[in-house]
Amino acid sequence: MGFWGIEVKPKKKVVPFASPSAQGRLRITQAILGPGSSTEKAILQCFTNPERSVYLCVLTPDKTDSCSLELEFDEDDNVTFSVIGSRSIHLSGYFLTDDGES
Amino acid sequence: MGFWGIEVKPKKKVVPFASPSAQGRLRITQAILGPGSSTEKAILQCFTNPERSVYLCVLTPDKTDSCSLELEFDEDDNVTFSVIGSRSIHLSGYFLTDDGES
Amino acid sequence: MGFWGIEVKPKKKVVPFASPSAQGRLRITQAILGPGSSTEKAILQCFTNPERSVYLCVLTPDKTDSCSLELEFDEDDNVTFSVIGSRSIHLSGYFLTDDGES
Amino acid sequence: MGFWGIEVKPKKKVVPFASPSAQGRLRITQAILGPGSSTEKAILQCFTNPERSVYLCVLTPDKTDSCSLELEFDEDDNVTFSVIGSRSIHLSGYFLTDDGES
Amino acid sequence: MGFWGIEVKPKKKVVPFASPSAQGRLRITQAILGPGSSTEKAILQCFTNPERSVYLCVLTPDKTDSCSLELEFDEDDNVTFSVIGSRSIHLSGYFLTDDGES
Repeated sequence: MGFWGIEVKPKKKVVPFASPSAQGRLRITQAILGPGSSTEKAILQCFTNPERSVYLCVLTPDKTDSCSLELEFDEDDNVTFSVIGSRSIHLSGYFLTDDGES
Repeated sequence: MGFWGIEVKPKKKVVPFASPSAQGRLRITQAILGPGSSTEKAILQCFTNPERSVYLCVLTPDKTDSCSLELEFDEDDNVTFSVIGSRSIHLSGYFLTDDGES
Repeated sequence: MGFWGIEVKPKKKVVPFASPSAQGRLRITQAILGPGSSTEKAILQCFTNPERSVYLCVLTPDKTDSCSLELEFDEDDNVTFSVIGSRSIHLSGYFLTDDGES
Repeated sequence: MGFWGIEVKPKKKVVPFASPSAQGRLRITQAILGPGSSTEKAILQCFTNPERSVYLCVLTPDKTDSCSLELEFDEDDNVTFSVIGSRSIHLSGYFLTDDGES
Repeated sequence: MGFWGIEVKPKKKVVPFASPSAQGRLRITQAILGPGSSTEKAILQCFTNPERSVYLCVLTPDKTDSCSLELEFDEDDNVTFSVIGSRSIHLSGYFLTDDGES
């Protein structure tokens, strides 16, 4: 499995390693604002535990519709993603290969 | 083969590994809006199966004419690209080398 | 430990390797403006010794809310981060793996 | 040889591996608009053969004066670069090392 | 030594490998406009010999205060940096590790 992509919808908590085929070290490289008419900012937030979070990107409709990222996660990092705002954020990336294999 | 480049035209589905010389792990790094006068946004969409897609980039004529990407695909990922909008998107990138060879 | 993220608050000096689990070579890849209403610029500054500093990024509220970075630090670099301005900066990144392990 | 840089002037075709010391896999990472007063867009175009080309970046004077790229070329790719527009484009990058050596 | 950072002041020529601890292959990843009130553009220029130069980035006060780069230099490249304009440019990056060591 090379490519990885998910949609983080508002008011949902998303775990990046949810799919059974999601294994290894994940690199997330792009965030795109999902469809919708709200002009409100959408912020991607990453919780490393229930009380502690850090912002990963800010998307502003019609101004910053996409944002390149460079983030890597291990399966045991136990992070969750959520969106602050009313539009979804589409994330894409890929699983890193070990020693040139995928 | 190092360099890789294709044009994704509106209303066409494009498979990244179409050419016989397209082998190995492909890294796509840039999207550029093709020529045209429409000022409508062009969105690059990636289908991982017929019902499930994720947005990969959004280009806005005269505002965001290009977008850097970092995406990797294996031949067995079976993805297809298409454009939402009326202008084409030019994609470029390269095939990753195994152990320093191309 | 893969993912790394901290908040650099105004008037605080932050050491990147403060947590006991923070070990190895750290790669910082994203800076995001924290919440707040001030429209003043926030500049991330890195001190390599008490008299010598270099700017690492400039964030402007509602214009440049995020900035991608590519910085690497060793534990013995002994740098400290601080913010010029009145809003915090959220930094994220990851620890580099040795030989494919995390 | 690490660093690589050339200027692609309007109405000229440029071959990236022209210099005798230009050997190995070349990575191009930045495009900058050259000096001049024309406000016309400058597009960097890459020909993989005389009839087939793809856009690599679009620069707009006073709006997008520079653009980061991530492109890799092998000597046997036989590509040529040209500019659509009336200002030159300065390209920079470096030769990739084999196995950690430069 | 991991982190590397310098300030390129107007009318000064700067050699990237000036410090005795500056050894190995240097990767420069970020340029930031230094403090000042001039609204004039600042261009980072790289001389590969006294007559030949290429632009590496263009910074525009209050519009493009920072620019990400990806440039690599070997000690024997013998390049010098200078700024066209009246404000300084802060450069940051790091020394590449050989085989996972720093």
